[in-house]
Amino acid sequence: MDAFVFDAYGTLFDVHSVVRRCDAFWPGKGAALSQAWRTKQLEYTWLRSLMGRYAPFSQVTWDALQWACDSLKLEKRDDELKQLMGEYLRLDTFPDVKETLGKLKGKRLAILSNGSPDMLDPVVAHADLRLDAVLSVDALKVYKPAPAVYQLAVEKLKVADRSAVTFVSSNCWDAIGAKSFGFRVFWINRAGAPADRLGFSPDGVLTTLSDLIGMAA
Amino acid sequence: MDAFVFDAYGTLFDVHSVVRRCDAFWPGKGAALSQAWRTKQLEYTWLRSLMGRYAPFSQVTWDALQWACDSLKLEKRDDELKQLMGEYLRLDTFPDVKETLGKLKGKRLAILSNGSPDMLDPVVAHADLRLDAVLSVDALKVYKPAPAVYQLAVEKLKVADRSAVTFVSSNCWDAIGAKSFGFRVFWINRAGAPADRLGFSPDGVLTTLSDLIGMAA
Repeated sequence: MDAFVFDAYGTLFDVHSVVRRCDAFWPGKGAALSQAWRTKQLEYTWLRSLMGRYAPFSQVTWDALQWACDSLKLEKRDDELKQLMGEYLRLDTFPDVKETLGKLKGKRLAILSNGSPDMLDPVVAHADLRLDAVLSVDALKVYKPAPAVYQLAVEKLKVADRSAVTFVSSNCWDAIGAKSFGFRVFWINRAGAPADRLGFSPDGVLTTLSDLIGMAA
Repeated sequence: MDAFVFDAYGTLFDVHSVVRRCDAFWPGKGAALSQAWRTKQLEYTWLRSLMGRYAPFSQVTWDALQWACDSLKLEKRDDELKQLMGEYLRLDTFPDVKETLGKLKGKRLAILSNGSPDMLDPVVAHADLRLDAVLSVDALKVYKPAPAVYQLAVEKLKVADRSAVTFVSSNCWDAIGAKSFGFRVFWINRAGAPADRLGFSPDGVLTTLSDLIGMAA
């Protein structure tokens, strides 16, 4: 049976509420803080993977938040930093997520995320998503886009081979990593960003998740 | 015999001339372009390493430049992009490099760089640096901070073991990668940036290269 596998943060879950709360705590600095935080969070996943020094996404995210505050010379108030981390546990899904997943009924549906179970399980429960599997890189101790991560979906979803998996991500580099591995891949480019230049291209570029129906299913 | 191993770009070689030329081509946008270019250049080294899809630093740098221009919606004129790439072949060293290397006479001195030989050899020749070895990750097809990269220096410099190597980088993540590997490490923090939070700390943090003398030698 074919499978549809989704990235979590930024793809199904909208991290805009985190940005909003950053701005509430440090008025006028929310956008800069969120951007520095997100950039560093990803950097740390790649660097730790290459160093062979995995730490769970919850720790990486916390470390990146501290760095981002320091880099912008913002006063770090422990209580507010913890509230920001807490936002990750109750993110909203994008408005078209439930309907799109509903239309894919009959396919195997899964999340494949960098998020560690302590972050991923609460946010999936909060959104009440019906999925066949919620897969975390934490089982492997290495982050995307290592091929082993995409292989995890092949094994756990018991698909015939990698070409039976359609992978969907709003992160271009994640989409390209999955394409390099051998999935059919759609990049959700909500922001109209230029494609990354890493030697592979997604099979399709969509502006919203709901465009997947018709294009891919 | 003890060895001193230096990162190249930003550590021995000042990339400021690249920033200046970016601004000459796209007035007022030089700083933003340089920053996007550098950020993406590093991202692509980490992503390609994790994907198992190595490409030489010259290609990664070219790809990152194209992306950075697109992301800032700058008109890409092929001639100017090639001139920017050309700047990398004739970077100036920081003013204290020659004197500092001179004072380390009697030690084994080397560069260990992400740069591919087509970029690294011309810039080292242009600066007329006297070194025992110029080592490129290109021999391994994986980028820093993979442990194999730091191991290359141990093997090529024929030191007794990794603790006999003092490693110097202006990139905090590179310094931490080398420390995680087992080198003695100094981070040259010219910009006063916050340290990265990756589970290890350099043995020392210096503001200029010349501070190495006395601290480390």
